[in-house]
Amino acid sequence: MTKICAAVDLGGTTVKIGLITDAGEILEKWEIPTRKEENGSKILPDIAASVREHVEARNMKVTDLCGAGIGVPGPVQNNGVVERCVNLGWGETNPEKELSAMLDGILVKAGNDANVAALGEQWMGGGKGSDSLMMYTLGTGVGGGLIYQGHIVTGYKGMAAEVGHMPMNLDEEDACNCGGHGCLEQYASATGIVKEMKRTLTAGGVSSRLSLDNEFSCKDVLDAAKDGDEAATKTMERCMKYLAASMASVSYVADPEVFVIGGGVSKAGNYLVDMVKKYFRGYCMLMKAMPEFKLATLGNDAGMFGSARLVFLEA
Amino acid sequence: MTKICAAVDLGGTTVKIGLITDAGEILEKWEIPTRKEENGSKILPDIAASVREHVEARNMKVTDLCGAGIGVPGPVQNNGVVERCVNLGWGETNPEKELSAMLDGILVKAGNDANVAALGEQWMGGGKGSDSLMMYTLGTGVGGGLIYQGHIVTGYKGMAAEVGHMPMNLDEEDACNCGGHGCLEQYASATGIVKEMKRTLTAGGVSSRLSLDNEFSCKDVLDAAKDGDEAATKTMERCMKYLAASMASVSYVADPEVFVIGGGVSKAGNYLVDMVKKYFRGYCMLMKAMPEFKLATLGNDAGMFGSARLVFLEA
Repeated sequence: MTKICAAVDLGGTTVKIGLITDAGEILEKWEIPTRKEENGSKILPDIAASVREHVEARNMKVTDLCGAGIGVPGPVQNNGVVERCVNLGWGETNPEKELSAMLDGILVKAGNDANVAALGEQWMGGGKGSDSLMMYTLGTGVGGGLIYQGHIVTGYKGMAAEVGHMPMNLDEEDACNCGGHGCLEQYASATGIVKEMKRTLTAGGVSSRLSLDNEFSCKDVLDAAKDGDEAATKTMERCMKYLAASMASVSYVADPEVFVIGGGVSKAGNYLVDMVKKYFRGYCMLMKAMPEFKLATLGNDAGMFGSARLVFLEA
Repeated sequence: MTKICAAVDLGGTTVKIGLITDAGEILEKWEIPTRKEENGSKILPDIAASVREHVEARNMKVTDLCGAGIGVPGPVQNNGVVERCVNLGWGETNPEKELSAMLDGILVKAGNDANVAALGEQWMGGGKGSDSLMMYTLGTGVGGGLIYQGHIVTGYKGMAAEVGHMPMNLDEEDACNCGGHGCLEQYASATGIVKEMKRTLTAGGVSSRLSLDNEFSCKDVLDAAKDGDEAATKTMERCMKYLAASMASVSYVADPEVFVIGGGVSKAGNYLVDMVKKYFRGYCMLMKAMPEFKLATLGNDAGMFGSARLVFLEA
């Protein structure tokens, strides 16, 4: 019999919710606002009420669900506890226990949003068919999720797969948002790519259709690079070297079968994947067979798929 | 009832063998030579015969053992298969199946020697009490072992925890043994430290009791640094920065609770641990609580303890 699960991707602005089958079919999906007032105390009750409403509208009971999964925008420990989540105003919270109590005691599983997105891509997206995967999400920042033997690796304090802050350049003088210097995010995020392009233009000596006199976006840099723009190409090569080196380090730590690349920057598609593969080879000489490099395919639904999968792994 | 296991640490020159109880007591240990002739085909029969002899000398049968564990100097896949082990002359080998057949069908578990040493340190050594640990072995080269939830992480092709080849410096011009450039091993191994000291002396501008005119060892550099020697201190700071940055990357990939440092270089003791901790902090800003940094305590017995543990985890 088909199992159905409520899948929740809890973001700082909206909550995406879906009803997903164990075959990976989305029966229905919708969004509600994230009410962060009063230390985020309304968030879980809002989710529970909305799930109940949609389930009952299908002439089902909440207890007909095999569970609910939830991705949270902050570190989640192995036992499901969130120590603190600034994005939601939460202090120590146990979303598994609390949401379960509001949903007639059904199984609830929680995970970090980036980890859960990786699990979604592993189950139904770019990493389908492999149970060992590292996902990089290249957006405003750089996030990650590590799947080993089909399960999320959370690490001791929920900090595993925070690949955006791997120290890649000990000589970097500019500071990262985290306070460190030379983090991957400073080169491989959309923000980082724009900043590096400005550095290239400031250093001069290469031609470009972009100029420091006009604002440009990461997409402008990527488009220019694809068209062979000299400064943009030089910039992307430098940025992708750091990305490839960080992936080589991941291989030498966890040796995943597949790397999945998602987020806005990944819209550069095969141009980006090919550049990463080229540099990876030189940074990972012991690896006889290359891992696979794939683009994420689930987009904004990855979190829902992953939170559903969290439940199906146990239900 | 006390369980007893045969524990084998298979090296390129000698095989260390022990009988170890599930309480972590070594009842007896001995060594035999590693006969690499004929593609290493004599190695497993030699081990089996030696185990049998020692077990029978105690008026026990081989089948009284709860199993045998073996650490192999090369990558071992999750299913126990060794694709190739140049150090032993082996082509594709299944030491679990083959050794079991020679030992009356008892359970045999195999692992990579560095991984198995990490498991030993986790069970009975520097990492006792934690089930999540990364061990660095700083010797002629740099090896590693990653333990997650009490088990070895092998990765997809047995390449996990090969931390010696994490690319730490993309600007390095000298090549590593692996063919890469800027691997951790080029800075944090005994060989690497001596080489970096020579670089410091060649660059000049700092005083030192060591000189390019006389050969010196890694121990000489460590001793000089501990005594405040200017060039040796500068060298160690550079080398330990790379070591600390690689540990920060490991934390951002797998987030272990404990780092255990072993191998010859670790004889520098707390001097080295303190330096690593100091730099780690700056490279791992998101980590609210620092992981623990501990020295390995089992020395050459770590591999035997770990290979016994491989068996006790399943027996």
